[in-house]
Amino acid sequence: MPKIVDHEKQRRIVAEAALRVIQDSGLEHATVRKIAAEAKVSAGALRHYFATQAELLVFCMNEFRARIERRLESIDIASEPPLIAFRNLLLQFIPLDAERKMEMEVWLTFTSKTFVYPELKQLSAQMDDSLYAVSDYVIRALARKEGTQLSWDPGTETDKLHALVDGLALHRMLRPERLGQERIERMLDQHLASLYRGDPSGESL
Amino acid sequence: MPKIVDHEKQRRIVAEAALRVIQDSGLEHATVRKIAAEAKVSAGALRHYFATQAELLVFCMNEFRARIERRLESIDIASEPPLIAFRNLLLQFIPLDAERKMEMEVWLTFTSKTFVYPELKQLSAQMDDSLYAVSDYVIRALARKEGTQLSWDPGTETDKLHALVDGLALHRMLRPERLGQERIERMLDQHLASLYRGDPSGESL
Repeated sequence: MPKIVDHEKQRRIVAEAALRVIQDSGLEHATVRKIAAEAKVSAGALRHYFATQAELLVFCMNEFRARIERRLESIDIASEPPLIAFRNLLLQFIPLDAERKMEMEVWLTFTSKTFVYPELKQLSAQMDDSLYAVSDYVIRALARKEGTQLSWDPGTETDKLHALVDGLALHRMLRPERLGQERIERMLDQHLASLYRGDPSGESL
Repeated sequence: MPKIVDHEKQRRIVAEAALRVIQDSGLEHATVRKIAAEAKVSAGALRHYFATQAELLVFCMNEFRARIERRLESIDIASEPPLIAFRNLLLQFIPLDAERKMEMEVWLTFTSKTFVYPELKQLSAQMDDSLYAVSDYVIRALARKEGTQLSWDPGTETDKLHALVDGLALHRMLRPERLGQERIERMLDQHLASLYRGDPSGESL
């Protein structure tokens, strides 16, 4: 049987292997050798995809951006009550399952590296823009919504929602035992409802 | 002149040297040798204070906790309008000056290491508890305050404020050009005022 070189498939295999090694060993110990072994390719073949740790980080972060995009696209906003749909969009940034947990851990390590390698800052800013864009979308949609008492400033509320979601993501990752999924969902529901009705209790959802 | 060994003074000199090296080189490259050179002591003397990188991290994080405590204690709550005093307490966790910026960078690196060294998790949780305690204090004080329309749940609001402040700290550190001090102060003022008057616009401060 001839060897069929499926470049994209191989690229995915290498990416998934890299992510598993990072998850298991931490980014510090995710060497080219370990990733090559996990992907069952030679170190030389692996270097075709990324030659340095910085390239590996960029690769992983771009992979995570694509994953988040796919998850966001998979949410059918029209099929849910709007406030539930908005909450579900925001939940995509919070490490509630193994996939999002790994993304968040690598993101945190990546972010801490941007102080040492300033060339990573641009990608870090792009990651940040994704959540900002979703926060902006949600706040604009809320501001337009019939029934909303627009007593608040959309720019301020976008910044607040952006910070609230990243803060919850961080706290969930660091202390999952304290911040269960239900508690996070309740908090986001209450926050969105408080903006919708102009009622800080958020009881009008 | 006899050599006076002032243990505490020396300890402080070593700590400050370690923090400067971390700030300049990143935690990755903050070696015992570099810190010893910066502190103008021998590597042997330095190992008296911390022998491993994990010990150095613990040392720095404990130093930061003490600094934050000192800053919090230095705020005279009674001399300011309460909402301004509460905001000033919360600002101590946001990297608005070089000192807090360094704390936040080391904290982020420290936190990313907790995935690789689980023994650091306890200290990470203690750091987290400091901000939680301040959020809890502020929300309880607001709930008790005359004039507050208590239409919200204090537990939920403590979690939200905790997440909001950590999210703002993260965003300020990653993109200081986007999130100026005034914008952060306005956001916190608006948030506290919205809880005080039960008015999401926060205009009643």
